[in-house]
Amino acid sequence: MSLSEVEHRYVREARVGRLATADGDGRPNVVPVCFALHGGAIVSAVDEKPKATAPGALRRVRDVRANPTVALVVDHYTPDWTDLGWVQVRGTAALLDPGDDGHADAVRALREKYDQYATHDLSTAPVIRIDPGQVRSWGRLDGRPSGSEPGQG
Amino acid sequence: MSLSEVEHRYVREARVGRLATADGDGRPNVVPVCFALHGGAIVSAVDEKPKATAPGALRRVRDVRANPTVALVVDHYTPDWTDLGWVQVRGTAALLDPGDDGHADAVRALREKYDQYATHDLSTAPVIRIDPGQVRSWGRLDGRPSGSEPGQG
Repeated sequence: MSLSEVEHRYVREARVGRLATADGDGRPNVVPVCFALHGGAIVSAVDEKPKATAPGALRRVRDVRANPTVALVVDHYTPDWTDLGWVQVRGTAALLDPGDDGHADAVRALREKYDQYATHDLSTAPVIRIDPGQVRSWGRLDGRPSGSEPGQG
Repeated sequence: MSLSEVEHRYVREARVGRLATADGDGRPNVVPVCFALHGGAIVSAVDEKPKATAPGALRRVRDVRANPTVALVVDHYTPDWTDLGWVQVRGTAALLDPGDDGHADAVRALREKYDQYATHDLSTAPVIRIDPGQVRSWGRLDGRPSGSEPGQG
């Protein structure tokens, strides 16, 4: 992982990131995701279950199968634009299905970070693992990223 | 624009969104952006000027020139996951250069929304205009999107 110490701290503290994927035709998609740093990678569970949509049918899962190149941004917004900042990680994503090497460890890392997962059955959810390639950052990273305090967005 | 009334209100109140583009090879990119709704489109100025990088050289500008399909997500994070929500707009982006039809109107819409632009020379900045195609939303949209209150991320 090529995150600097300050980038690593900033990304680690963030509760939410925004994950961009693209389909086989290069059409981008972006959704907010919860994630954890684990073993030099970024892991994120796909446990949403919209009615009549199995996790494997979710757009980002289909995208990653068709095109493993992804980008994640962690940032914070503040009305004082001199305090804005973000870290962007571009990398290669892999899908870990339950039972796959690394799936249980990723689930453990997510549960350690998010108490909210206590009531979720992550053992049956695919996990997206992102191996960072290029990392870019901008602005102030010494504050708190978006969502890192209760009530913040 | 195919935003419902509640989606429109939610997106209009948001101070920040995350814009996903992809390059000509389908590699996605995502950055936080300020934006305004204007005339059924979403407009966003490209006025960052990193040292030695002209606006036209910014990654998202190159991406849009190579591949006009983009996606924008507006969301909010809260520790109570029953209150999460987002609106995602997929659409087609066009670059408006200074002097182009619609550029001055877009700049006006951005200045009306963001007092912070008072000190920015937007007259020389390209504007990305996104014409919405598919709109999806999820969760609670009756609260405030990310960044819509002072101090929130």
